[in-house]
Amino acid sequence: MAIMFGETGMRTRTSSYQALKNGSSPNPPLLCAETTVAISRSFSQDKMWLNGKEQSMDNPRIQNCLREIRRRVRKRKTLEENSTEQEDLLNCHIHICSKNNFPTAAGLASSAAGYACLVFTLGKLFGVDGDLSEIARQGSGSACRSMYGGFVQWCTGDEENGTDSVAQQVASEKHWPSLRILILVVSNQKKGTSSSQGMQQSVRTSELLKFRSEKVIPRQVNDITQAIKEKDFSKFAEITMKDSNQLHAICQDTFPPIKYMNDTSWGIVELVHKYNSFCGETKVAYTFDAGPNACLYLLEPCVPEVISLIRYCFPSSSDGKHFITGLPVQSVALSQELIQGLQFTPCPDGLQYIIHTQVGSGPELVDEQMLDANGLPKTKCT
Amino acid sequence: MAIMFGETGMRTRTSSYQALKNGSSPNPPLLCAETTVAISRSFSQDKMWLNGKEQSMDNPRIQNCLREIRRRVRKRKTLEENSTEQEDLLNCHIHICSKNNFPTAAGLASSAAGYACLVFTLGKLFGVDGDLSEIARQGSGSACRSMYGGFVQWCTGDEENGTDSVAQQVASEKHWPSLRILILVVSNQKKGTSSSQGMQQSVRTSELLKFRSEKVIPRQVNDITQAIKEKDFSKFAEITMKDSNQLHAICQDTFPPIKYMNDTSWGIVELVHKYNSFCGETKVAYTFDAGPNACLYLLEPCVPEVISLIRYCFPSSSDGKHFITGLPVQSVALSQELIQGLQFTPCPDGLQYIIHTQVGSGPELVDEQMLDANGLPKTKCT
Repeated sequence: MAIMFGETGMRTRTSSYQALKNGSSPNPPLLCAETTVAISRSFSQDKMWLNGKEQSMDNPRIQNCLREIRRRVRKRKTLEENSTEQEDLLNCHIHICSKNNFPTAAGLASSAAGYACLVFTLGKLFGVDGDLSEIARQGSGSACRSMYGGFVQWCTGDEENGTDSVAQQVASEKHWPSLRILILVVSNQKKGTSSSQGMQQSVRTSELLKFRSEKVIPRQVNDITQAIKEKDFSKFAEITMKDSNQLHAICQDTFPPIKYMNDTSWGIVELVHKYNSFCGETKVAYTFDAGPNACLYLLEPCVPEVISLIRYCFPSSSDGKHFITGLPVQSVALSQELIQGLQFTPCPDGLQYIIHTQVGSGPELVDEQMLDANGLPKTKCT
Repeated sequence: MAIMFGETGMRTRTSSYQALKNGSSPNPPLLCAETTVAISRSFSQDKMWLNGKEQSMDNPRIQNCLREIRRRVRKRKTLEENSTEQEDLLNCHIHICSKNNFPTAAGLASSAAGYACLVFTLGKLFGVDGDLSEIARQGSGSACRSMYGGFVQWCTGDEENGTDSVAQQVASEKHWPSLRILILVVSNQKKGTSSSQGMQQSVRTSELLKFRSEKVIPRQVNDITQAIKEKDFSKFAEITMKDSNQLHAICQDTFPPIKYMNDTSWGIVELVHKYNSFCGETKVAYTFDAGPNACLYLLEPCVPEVISLIRYCFPSSSDGKHFITGLPVQSVALSQELIQGLQFTPCPDGLQYIIHTQVGSGPELVDEQMLDANGLPKTKCT
């Protein structure tokens, strides 16, 4: 029985259909998916557990990933003609155990991290070399980006069959060490449209989407790549915000329209613009994915003031100690000038908590197994 | 001293930059602006009162309207060379008294109704004939539409100087007698961006706006005009909703982004789509202007059920009697099948009140004066 482990940093993207991602944080990652895949002759069927709950394997996205991995193994076998062990592997059933240590289906890219992790793990298990991002993409489009660390671009590609729609690293996680990420997890989330369903609806019904894909995105990807390479924060921030806004504009132009941002998300947008305007320069950027939670980018020296400001504007009535997790941060007092300058009406309990993190590394093997010798989830994973 | 009176139905538009409007309701209008203009040699300066409060005349939008009206008078005078009375009129100061019987600056087109009313009144006062919609447009773009009753199109025009950007009636208020309008006034409105400021920001910063203006709007205007002429409700409704969605998509694509719709507005969008889907046909359409309030279109037979449904989904804890104003409506019980089919989570006190109205007529002269013999607002207007 072979058991392999994979782990991927969460992706916190700055663009949408063809874009750049940042993984998250150092070892062990603050936000990550973790997957164990076991393969054995003794298994009577394929099985899967996600965050402790057994899931149907009857999911076309998982089946796509498995089929593509097996196709690659067969292709290599035909070339090499050397291994009965490979044949064995292909005939065995597998057990998959996966978990995220951050909220799923909340616009925090849990499926991107999860599918990247699954494909990476399957790749190791079956000994598949080469770029796996094309396979990860078939589980969840943006999962291809999570196959690498640092800043990653998802290339559109030219081929009809999508085989060249793969991810490539723009810069490693070590490139811009002062960049920080604050994830603002919004309260009272109503489960809305899933990102993949939403995207399909947009492709069918939004007239503005075609213009965005053809005319806007290619230039934005080019510009933000340059901004990252030059570590030009204000340029990076402005493109990030504009791109997030335009993505949600497309969601609204979809029919029926899709809404991911709620009134609290918009409160965050207002606060960021007011703060930047008060500072006289762009010090913070926001981006929203398929949910109401905000992802803020900023440079390390700004973190203490911005976190204090968020605590002031979105005061939490519960335990303050658990309101911020992740990298440590010093508390600072806000100046009266800033508070009065912003004219922001506080929204009590608008946020559940804040995660303070940074650009992370790509998938990596870890020692801990989540399946026991019988291929069943260990107690702590259920 | 000459005193003239004008009154215009409010416009509840179905499109944005170049669009169609419906005035509102029978005589006396449920939603209207009313303006008295007095002119006298005894006035020492121009003065203006809006909803009882004196306003500065130092407003470029008002000055534009006055200048254009006076220019037309002079032009005619030059042609006719007959009247010293006209010369007199041009040298006198004026007093303006205006009021709306519906919320101002809440996305209910109060400035459109107000400027249309002012220009119509000035036109009567100075005896200016011909199309005045080009002048009204200089007070508030969409005011040109409120110069006519029924369904009105605001034509883009081809001239650089905008002189052919005028309104024209597509169909009169008698054309589609079964069409009804429900205005859902949303609670806890936060004063946001004004529509004219917002539009200027969008023109400067939204990349999607140009595509919308050039590629989408001309076809939509054509299609909705045809739908109105054919009284094809489901076509009319679908274009109305898509156009509203796209207008707000452009607002979101503006930088910084503009948000007019709040969580309650989105609750209304969700309810309308769920109801239409339950009915198996498009029975209700929503449209949102520069504020969170919804304007629903529907045919008269659907009104009782839809109003009952809104009362169920947005229950009001205050006096139910004043929750609905306007045209009378019969109360009906909702079927359990409908309630269970919709799966809508009620939002208590999401709405302030509902106005039930219909397509209205254009501006008309009324007898009541709002200024007394000294040119000052009568007590009831302050």
